[in-house]
Amino acid sequence: MLSLGIDPGTASLGYGLVREADDGSLACVDYGVIRTRANTPMPQRLKHIHDELVALIERYQPDRAAVEELFFARNVTTAITVAQARGVVLLALQNAGLPIAEYKPNAVKQAITGYGGADKTQMQEMVRLLLNLERRPRPDDAADALAVAIADLHSFRLASFSTV
Amino acid sequence: MLSLGIDPGTASLGYGLVREADDGSLACVDYGVIRTRANTPMPQRLKHIHDELVALIERYQPDRAAVEELFFARNVTTAITVAQARGVVLLALQNAGLPIAEYKPNAVKQAITGYGGADKTQMQEMVRLLLNLERRPRPDDAADALAVAIADLHSFRLASFSTV
Repeated sequence: MLSLGIDPGTASLGYGLVREADDGSLACVDYGVIRTRANTPMPQRLKHIHDELVALIERYQPDRAAVEELFFARNVTTAITVAQARGVVLLALQNAGLPIAEYKPNAVKQAITGYGGADKTQMQEMVRLLLNLERRPRPDDAADALAVAIADLHSFRLASFSTV
Repeated sequence: MLSLGIDPGTASLGYGLVREADDGSLACVDYGVIRTRANTPMPQRLKHIHDELVALIERYQPDRAAVEELFFARNVTTAITVAQARGVVLLALQNAGLPIAEYKPNAVKQAITGYGGADKTQMQEMVRLLLNLERRPRPDDAADALAVAIADLHSFRLASFSTV
């Protein structure tokens, strides 16, 4: 079971691919960020994000996808910009026919650390341990995306058990 | 010169196609809304919006596209939902290779009525007169989209003159 986790953004969109073996062990397949430049017109930035994501899906053929939900208490302008990118992400995943799950940031923290209020360093350290990586994954957006993929695999496993 | 105006939304996305003849006269080519159901998963709704818009572009082959900018003073959740739809709209327009202009709502009102604070009825009545329609175009989202296309043609003509 290969899950593609995504932390949406326009300047930097994080992605992380995590495979769960039949014995429940996790392995990091790939992670990174898709970057776009602030001085590029938004439609071109959205196309770049979309096309890079489509290429990732074709390359790795994930079984599932998981996208972090947006949470903005204050800055509506930033929310709108990130949400536009999130729209093209959901479109690419839907066009690929993937099951898509969406997770709130604190649900991801809860799934990874057992504590919804965990800080960034605690999260990244747990991701490192769970994926048996030598170092904490970088940059932050990629680490967040790996966390989303792990949370998705946990959630999917729990859901599978619950139907037995 | 055929402009495709769009008023972004998820439940109802307005579109309007307006042609400007060489003598500067305007004609309404088509208008309407792309609807999606609230109980359909968002990725499917975004795909529907994207695919319908691509079909419209293929059918009418517009020369330009114009999209209303989002303005939300309060409701961030609504802003995020509409912005996701706006993202797939911009992607479809970019993929079609169209020049894309973005207009603030009050800039559209200013262009149509000469007054940025015009109300909905005044706007729709001006759109009706400018396009020589028998009745005010309905529903609201389609009328707004026609207004965006008209504003875009005005703006484009002014820009063309200014370079002479």
